[in-house]
Amino acid sequence: MSEKANNGAGLRGQSAGSTALCTVGKSGSGLTYRGYDIHDLAEHARFEEVAYLLLKGKLPNRQELNDYVAKLKTLRGLPTALKAVLEQIPADAHPMDVMRTGASMLGNLETEESFGEQQDRSDRMLAVFPSIINYWYRYSHDGVRIETETDDESIGGHFLHLLHGKPASELHARVMNVSLILYAEHEFNASTFTARVCASTLSDIHSCVTGAIGSLRGPLHGGANEAAMAMIEHWQSPDEAEREILGMLERKEKIMGFGHAIYRESDPRNAIIKQWSRNLAEDVGDARLYPVSERVEQVMWREKKLFCNADFFHASAYYFMGIPTKLFTPIFVCSRLTGWCAHVFEQRANNRIIRPSADYTGPDKQPWLPIEQRN
Amino acid sequence: MSEKANNGAGLRGQSAGSTALCTVGKSGSGLTYRGYDIHDLAEHARFEEVAYLLLKGKLPNRQELNDYVAKLKTLRGLPTALKAVLEQIPADAHPMDVMRTGASMLGNLETEESFGEQQDRSDRMLAVFPSIINYWYRYSHDGVRIETETDDESIGGHFLHLLHGKPASELHARVMNVSLILYAEHEFNASTFTARVCASTLSDIHSCVTGAIGSLRGPLHGGANEAAMAMIEHWQSPDEAEREILGMLERKEKIMGFGHAIYRESDPRNAIIKQWSRNLAEDVGDARLYPVSERVEQVMWREKKLFCNADFFHASAYYFMGIPTKLFTPIFVCSRLTGWCAHVFEQRANNRIIRPSADYTGPDKQPWLPIEQRN
Repeated sequence: MSEKANNGAGLRGQSAGSTALCTVGKSGSGLTYRGYDIHDLAEHARFEEVAYLLLKGKLPNRQELNDYVAKLKTLRGLPTALKAVLEQIPADAHPMDVMRTGASMLGNLETEESFGEQQDRSDRMLAVFPSIINYWYRYSHDGVRIETETDDESIGGHFLHLLHGKPASELHARVMNVSLILYAEHEFNASTFTARVCASTLSDIHSCVTGAIGSLRGPLHGGANEAAMAMIEHWQSPDEAEREILGMLERKEKIMGFGHAIYRESDPRNAIIKQWSRNLAEDVGDARLYPVSERVEQVMWREKKLFCNADFFHASAYYFMGIPTKLFTPIFVCSRLTGWCAHVFEQRANNRIIRPSADYTGPDKQPWLPIEQRN
Repeated sequence: MSEKANNGAGLRGQSAGSTALCTVGKSGSGLTYRGYDIHDLAEHARFEEVAYLLLKGKLPNRQELNDYVAKLKTLRGLPTALKAVLEQIPADAHPMDVMRTGASMLGNLETEESFGEQQDRSDRMLAVFPSIINYWYRYSHDGVRIETETDDESIGGHFLHLLHGKPASELHARVMNVSLILYAEHEFNASTFTARVCASTLSDIHSCVTGAIGSLRGPLHGGANEAAMAMIEHWQSPDEAEREILGMLERKEKIMGFGHAIYRESDPRNAIIKQWSRNLAEDVGDARLYPVSERVEQVMWREKKLFCNADFFHASAYYFMGIPTKLFTPIFVCSRLTGWCAHVFEQRANNRIIRPSADYTGPDKQPWLPIEQRN
């Protein structure tokens, strides 16, 4: 069938299109969004500013940013029918199934009728996704129906406010802001590519995002920070962590939060979130989880020359802010949504349906076998 | 970024993996499922038999088929929470958004906890998808809460029974059977490829299917039979149809239901569904829609050498069975689900995460621009 052999399984190293959004692992610039270095964005920008950069194509001026933040604040409310759906989802559901269902249900209620609506639909999802996951979480776990319309300035602060029932501290809102920036965009990763394949059929944006959430749910993609947390939370000291890690390496067990499909020497996001995790540790007086995390980093480098990726120090950072482990990947969704939507816009602007070929490995054509003659 | 230029936009002609499930457009055998010709399958098989072939890897013997049909009959009931969700979706929602949301919600209630459950989860979806769409349709359009557990022998008969509130005629059940076989599998089309990208992250099967539904929703993929219906239903005679088609060709308008991305000379599914559409026309005494369809086929071949694909005569066939146009693509879902799930199993059995590269076309790295300095 295919004109070319499948040399790279998983399409590794094969181009599936073009993008102006992001470079990953390019020499001398580890990660850029529309040409801006991730270090600059994490240090100087608000997440809403980065969302604007990705979705609207340029950094906003003061007025544009103020208007955008004000607009997003008005879009946090949940439709009654969506609340009713979230209340039907049990407490033991997978939170990514909740996000996927919430996004899909929203598409029934606020359908994108034409591509001219793509900006507004994306802004709405950006504003309301924290409401979706926290409404479900608080209802199913605490039995309360929260009010999702808050006056918080930032999406990160809004998320923590809904989760904890009180406004976030300045430090926590700041760390959420940085975290959302770090996860916002990463070129043709599997969830973004899912969104683009869906977009290439000219489907609506809720379908694209719903599909992307389903792909991010996979343990080979999102979820590494949850897995890292599940690992480190059991260790009481750096020495115990080192013993356990060495045992895991000995048994060739997979250790989550290390290495990367594209980066070869380091993940530029690690140093940034690591510094913020340290700040949080000092703030809460932690003497366990941060030192444990640092030791794991040292041992993995010493033994395997494997570096921390963006996920590893996110685990302790989120933990210090009181975020339940099961909500880590949904936060990733609230951030990466910006990249997904920007890629959908790009795919639509220069589209051809994504329909690869396959190498056939099945049986030759065979005659029909009547049911009485079958084994 | 990419090691190879993007010669074929949309990955056309590039292999994205291997499959033993299907050949499309291979010389001398237009369409095969695991080596069996589509003509043999449509003539001799039951859809449940084809589903078994795709999902379990071989044609079932008599006992296996009886057991499978019996199993599927027990799986048609809707969980209470899923009914409650469907009742929240308005009558004017896009039916593919309903299917997508129903599949996603099911994943919350009956989560695939390990890949050992993949067969049972797929069988459940196969049995319950007709219940999902018809429960919503009858509730939102007719205000009735239907009982979805019927004693119909076939999935096609079950679908029509729920829709019309009475058991289907033998002829109608037979045509639905053929239709579900024709749409069951088609190699690496965009929705199937969406399912495989999602599966490659090791996500759950409901995520894979939910994503695939979103892609099938796109007008470049599913929906061509709906578009064909919307076109032909306005024409009162073959002569009027010919005049209108010639006008549309003159104005270079897109005419749905013709040509194909892979097939070059004909779509092997067309002759099959065309014959059944003719049988249905005779059965209902139609003297308009079938002759109109035939004339459109003649004109398109005469003028443009474009052949009918699987979708074109599906439009009249479904119409003759009293199926509302908006439910055409959801029927496609109830069928293609088998191919999607079989591809998910295949991807999982020999997996590498599908993560292509992109050609970067954006700005070079640029220094941070403080907000006061922006235009």
